[in-house]
Amino acid sequence: MAVFTEVSRDDAADLMQRLGLGTLVEMAGCAGGIENTNYFVTTERDGERHEWVLTLFERLSAEQLPFYLYLMKHLAARDIPVPDPQADATGTILHTVRGKRAAVVNRLRGQYEPNPTPQHCAQLGALLARMHLAGRDYEREQPNLRGLAWWNETVPVILPHLQPEQAALLTAELAYQNHIAASPTYQGLPRGPIHADLFRDNAMFEDGRLTGVFDFYFAGCDTWLFDIAVCLNDWCIDLRDGRADPERTRALLEAYESVRPLTAGERALLPALRRAGALRFWISRLWDWYLPRQAAVLKPHDPTHFERVLRARLAEC
Amino acid sequence: MAVFTEVSRDDAADLMQRLGLGTLVEMAGCAGGIENTNYFVTTERDGERHEWVLTLFERLSAEQLPFYLYLMKHLAARDIPVPDPQADATGTILHTVRGKRAAVVNRLRGQYEPNPTPQHCAQLGALLARMHLAGRDYEREQPNLRGLAWWNETVPVILPHLQPEQAALLTAELAYQNHIAASPTYQGLPRGPIHADLFRDNAMFEDGRLTGVFDFYFAGCDTWLFDIAVCLNDWCIDLRDGRADPERTRALLEAYESVRPLTAGERALLPALRRAGALRFWISRLWDWYLPRQAAVLKPHDPTHFERVLRARLAEC
Repeated sequence: MAVFTEVSRDDAADLMQRLGLGTLVEMAGCAGGIENTNYFVTTERDGERHEWVLTLFERLSAEQLPFYLYLMKHLAARDIPVPDPQADATGTILHTVRGKRAAVVNRLRGQYEPNPTPQHCAQLGALLARMHLAGRDYEREQPNLRGLAWWNETVPVILPHLQPEQAALLTAELAYQNHIAASPTYQGLPRGPIHADLFRDNAMFEDGRLTGVFDFYFAGCDTWLFDIAVCLNDWCIDLRDGRADPERTRALLEAYESVRPLTAGERALLPALRRAGALRFWISRLWDWYLPRQAAVLKPHDPTHFERVLRARLAEC
Repeated sequence: MAVFTEVSRDDAADLMQRLGLGTLVEMAGCAGGIENTNYFVTTERDGERHEWVLTLFERLSAEQLPFYLYLMKHLAARDIPVPDPQADATGTILHTVRGKRAAVVNRLRGQYEPNPTPQHCAQLGALLARMHLAGRDYEREQPNLRGLAWWNETVPVILPHLQPEQAALLTAELAYQNHIAASPTYQGLPRGPIHADLFRDNAMFEDGRLTGVFDFYFAGCDTWLFDIAVCLNDWCIDLRDGRADPERTRALLEAYESVRPLTAGERALLPALRRAGALRFWISRLWDWYLPRQAAVLKPHDPTHFERVLRARLAEC
């Protein structure tokens, strides 16, 4: 974690050549991620320039990576605008660079939108629904590794660090989510591969148009509704207090439903799953904040944001 | 920004040798900063291992850097536990590596404390006072580049992006701070080099003991009271709502005053300067959030934290 791997121009140029992506023109290390090392690479092929992202995986295992990379490839092949992992002549998309697992994907155009309007949210909602449908025939299986089982494991480790009222809230919410997960309505929710981390900084816009979504490294098989809930909890709230913005919420959901209408069960469980979405990130941020802290330089996100988001969800119920 | 510079083992080994720091044993890139490139470097000298940080400056200019580096050297020479920039045989502490300005400092031991207790705050308070006193005879001058002049320049650019009530708050607070800054009491506050960004993640603790403070790249000449205010606003609040924690506040201030008692003017203006400290970071985070956004990968801090901190300060007045 928080360590990056150096790639020389020659390493990168060789890989680009081997993938048939052209001649390396430019390359720049980019310090955006803390779990991966990313380079922006420009190549020239047939007189045109192309932009790529070369990622070296520092944390993810060889068991986990194929699920993410082949999911991206599967979605890209179905015209979902996601980064498309590039294959070599043998069809391999998981490469090795400097002893690390690596991938090369096309770079999405534009920038992320820190202040989405209803128009941005609608585009995201429609894309999310298309992505869920396009993932239906994806054959690899991997659970959401930050799902209920992980929450049940992690909460007891975090509890000793919390104030009594926080501990009470966390315990009660976890019990509620275990209860919900056991219900027949939950069991009947439509499921499939989901992004599971589709925050506003994992989508790009150019001139107000969504150019794609990326960072599939928390993806897993789970309910589609959970994916929707995570998006609503980030795209459609006031970041100051976590409260839902009705206009953006409506825009995202209506656009989603214009592609795939929610089932009755999904409608019934949306409030519960929005709580689950807040709980998931509250737990992981508490975990990063209080535990292992191995790398002195790793600066975790303030966990209190998702405590506010969860409290705002509860206030709505 | 958000770009890092690669340094080969040979580059690093050469530099270490040139600075008389021994033979390079290990080196690891570290993705902690987004404005600098940092490497942890281990050397061996006389059979002992030593830990260093090699920093390449991506943003800071050759005009600004000497102020920061010589300040650190000045403080380190007076037994203030701060990273000490290492000189070559000619006495130079600002080096060049791969065409970038670079420095090598000793690496502080321990980790930062995400949840400081009154004991942590007391140690910080005492160190802050010692640091202020030790800086009195530092001869270089550089204003706090994120001070009142910068706020006055920046606020008009941010205002169009804000909601009416936020814009009103920001405008009113800026007017208040201009008013305060013009007062004779403010003009009489003791001044000197200050850290100006001493958040809990810029201090290291080992076994509960403060081993030092670092990241002087926002330092400048300003009132000592502003430095105290910035610390109180981070170390001594509940991060959830920005409210002051009385115990930690008292611990930090009492420890500070055990080294250097506040003047009557400082006492009078502490509430105003705590508002100023919140305003400064609210402005810079709004700026990062709404403006240039040149690098798609740069993920700015949510600015709403310091809006809450400012509102909490106002509620106390």
